[in-house]
Amino acid sequence: MISTYISTQKQVLGGMAKQEDTGSVEDRLIARHFGPLATDPGAFGLIDDAAILVPPAGCDLVLKADAIIGGVHFLPDDPPDTVARKALRVNLSDLAAKGARPLGFLLSLALPREIGDDWLEGFARGLKDDVERYGCPLFGGDTDRTPGPIMVSIAAFGAVPHGTMLKRSGARPGDRVVVTGTIGDAVLGLKLRRDPDAAGRLGLDAVARDRLIARYRMPEPRNAVADVMRRYASGGMDVSDGLAGDLAKLCRASGVDAIIDATLVPLSEGARRAVAAEPALLADLLTGGDDYEILASVAADNLGALIKEAAAAGVAVTAIGRVEPGAGRAAFIGADGVPLVFARPSFSHFD
Amino acid sequence: MISTYISTQKQVLGGMAKQEDTGSVEDRLIARHFGPLATDPGAFGLIDDAAILVPPAGCDLVLKADAIIGGVHFLPDDPPDTVARKALRVNLSDLAAKGARPLGFLLSLALPREIGDDWLEGFARGLKDDVERYGCPLFGGDTDRTPGPIMVSIAAFGAVPHGTMLKRSGARPGDRVVVTGTIGDAVLGLKLRRDPDAAGRLGLDAVARDRLIARYRMPEPRNAVADVMRRYASGGMDVSDGLAGDLAKLCRASGVDAIIDATLVPLSEGARRAVAAEPALLADLLTGGDDYEILASVAADNLGALIKEAAAAGVAVTAIGRVEPGAGRAAFIGADGVPLVFARPSFSHFD
Repeated sequence: MISTYISTQKQVLGGMAKQEDTGSVEDRLIARHFGPLATDPGAFGLIDDAAILVPPAGCDLVLKADAIIGGVHFLPDDPPDTVARKALRVNLSDLAAKGARPLGFLLSLALPREIGDDWLEGFARGLKDDVERYGCPLFGGDTDRTPGPIMVSIAAFGAVPHGTMLKRSGARPGDRVVVTGTIGDAVLGLKLRRDPDAAGRLGLDAVARDRLIARYRMPEPRNAVADVMRRYASGGMDVSDGLAGDLAKLCRASGVDAIIDATLVPLSEGARRAVAAEPALLADLLTGGDDYEILASVAADNLGALIKEAAAAGVAVTAIGRVEPGAGRAAFIGADGVPLVFARPSFSHFD
Repeated sequence: MISTYISTQKQVLGGMAKQEDTGSVEDRLIARHFGPLATDPGAFGLIDDAAILVPPAGCDLVLKADAIIGGVHFLPDDPPDTVARKALRVNLSDLAAKGARPLGFLLSLALPREIGDDWLEGFARGLKDDVERYGCPLFGGDTDRTPGPIMVSIAAFGAVPHGTMLKRSGARPGDRVVVTGTIGDAVLGLKLRRDPDAAGRLGLDAVARDRLIARYRMPEPRNAVADVMRRYASGGMDVSDGLAGDLAKLCRASGVDAIIDATLVPLSEGARRAVAAEPALLADLLTGGDDYEILASVAADNLGALIKEAAAAGVAVTAIGRVEPGAGRAAFIGADGVPLVFARPSFSHFD
C-alpha cells in the first residue's frame, strides 16, 4: 500500500539487466520476527498474501477480534513481551469463554517510528511463548508505521463441535452463576501502578503489589477449562469490562435476572486485604474490568461436575449466585443484605 | 477492557433494588451503526462476544488481515464512506487474487475523540454498501478510543474448494504474465491530490484528475474474476505495493524470472496522457502501489479462456510478459529494448 506518511527510501538498486529485489525491509522483518510463529502449513511461512485454514471436520469456527492500544489498554513502558501476550490473551479469553479450542490468529501491528528492533524482538518472543503455550499459531497479518501509539489488532479463530458454542443467551432461571479464578485483581493492579502510595495505604507488601500489577499487565485466560465450560455450562462470556456490567449483558442476552451474593465473589489474598483496608474498593473490583475470567451460568445438576473437572484442570470455579426469571438485571447483595449500588456498572470506551 | 486513557463517566445509575444496565454507549453505538451489517446468523446481531462461521463443505478458508491508518493509507479529509470501503476493499482484493469467494469479516476500529456520530454514520453507510455489493457481512469486532489517528483493521475470510487457493508460488516457466484493469492510477491520483499544479503540468482535465483521485481513494477489487483466476491461473497475488515489486515477490516465491514488455502494461487514458507529458512518470506508475489489480501467471494454453471469461465478467485482462527459468527476478523492458531501472521497486513501510 502507498504510505502518505513515510517516504524515506533506503533501497536504491539499479544497473542490473534483470533488476533483483531481495525483499523489502518489511518482508525481512516479518520473516525474522514472525516467521517462527507461523507453524501451521496453511500460513505458508508468511510468504503468501493470505493463509489457508482447513476447518476441522464437524466444527464451527468461532471468530473474535480485539485490539489493544498503547496508553489506552497498556502503559507505554510495559515490556514488549507482555504487550504481545496481552494482545493475544484478551482474544484467547473470549475463545475460552465460548468453549472453543484455539486454532490460530491474524495480527495487524501498527508501530510508531521510535519502535526499534529490540522492542519488536521482545514482542515476538512473548508472542511465540503464547503461540506454543496455547497451541495458537500465527496465520498472517500486516505491519505498518503509524504517527500514533502502538496498536496491536488480533483476530483469533477457534473451533467447537457444530452447534455447541457457549452463548451469552443461554442462562435459564434456576441456573447457578459461576466465575473462574479471582475478580478485581487487574483494576487493583492498575491502581497500584498509577499511585505509588496506594500499596502502603492498602496494607500490601511488595510481593502482593507485584502480583496484582502482573494481573493487569498480562491476563491468564482460562483456556484450560474451555471444554469443561462447553460441556456443562448453559451460557457464558469472559469478564473483560467488569463483572457487574458483563453479568448484566449476559442477563439481557438471556432475558433473565441474576442475584449475586457479593460476599461469595472470589477475591485474591491481596484484593481481600485491600478491601479490608478500604471497603469502598469492593465496588471498583466488581466493576473494573480486565479480569479475563469466565463468567458462566450452569444448571444446578451440572454444578458439581463443572467445579470438579475445572479443578482437575487447575482452575478454581466459584458459585456466586443464581439466575431468576426477569428482564435482564443483575443485583449484587452485600454482607448487610442490601444490594450494592455501582456508580458505573461497566467499562465502556464511549461513555 | 480497562482504559487508562478515557476516564470520563457519563452514566451514573443507582438507587434501584436491582440495578439495571441498559447497555453502554459503546454497545448502543455498535448496535445502531454496525448491527445492520451483521446479516449472517452466526454474527448473533453482534450481541455475543464472538461469532460463528460454519465453513462451507469441502472448502478451505482463506484468511487475510490488513489495516489502514489515517494520514498513512488515507488522507485525514477523505470522506468516511470511502475510508470504510477502502479498508474492506484492500482485503477483498487479496481474497480475489487468491481465487476466494468472500464469506465475511471482523472489524477493529480505533477512533480519536474528535470523531463524532456523523463520521461514524458515513463510515457505516459506506461499509454497508460494500457488504451488500461483495456479499461480505460483518461478523464482529471491537471499537476503541485512541489518542492517535483513525485505524481500521479488518480480518477477512473467504472460501475456495479444498486445495485450490491461488498461490504466489505457482508461476512456471512458459507461463504468461497477466494483469487486470490498469496500473498506476492510484499513485498518480495521490500525486494529483497532493500537488494542485500537477494536473495542469500533465495535461489532465478535471474529469481525468477526479477519476485518478477516485482510484487512490477507493480501490475496485477484482472479485468478479476470482473464480476465473482460480480456474485458469497458475499463480497470483494482488498488486498493492507496486507492480514491479509485487511481480518480483511472485517470482521469488515461484523460483522463476519474469520478462515484462513495459509497453504492454495497461494504462488508463489519464495515465497515458500523464506519461506522454512526463515520460519519467512511468517508473512511478509501475512501482507506486495501491493498484488493487490482480497479477497472475497463466499457462499459455489457458490464456485465451482466462481473458475471454474475465471479459464476460466485465474485467479486462492484459498479457504483459512471460515467465522464464530463473532465480526470482523481474525485468521490465522499455520501448527501446532496454530494461527499465527503478530507484525503488516496491513500497515498504519499513524501508
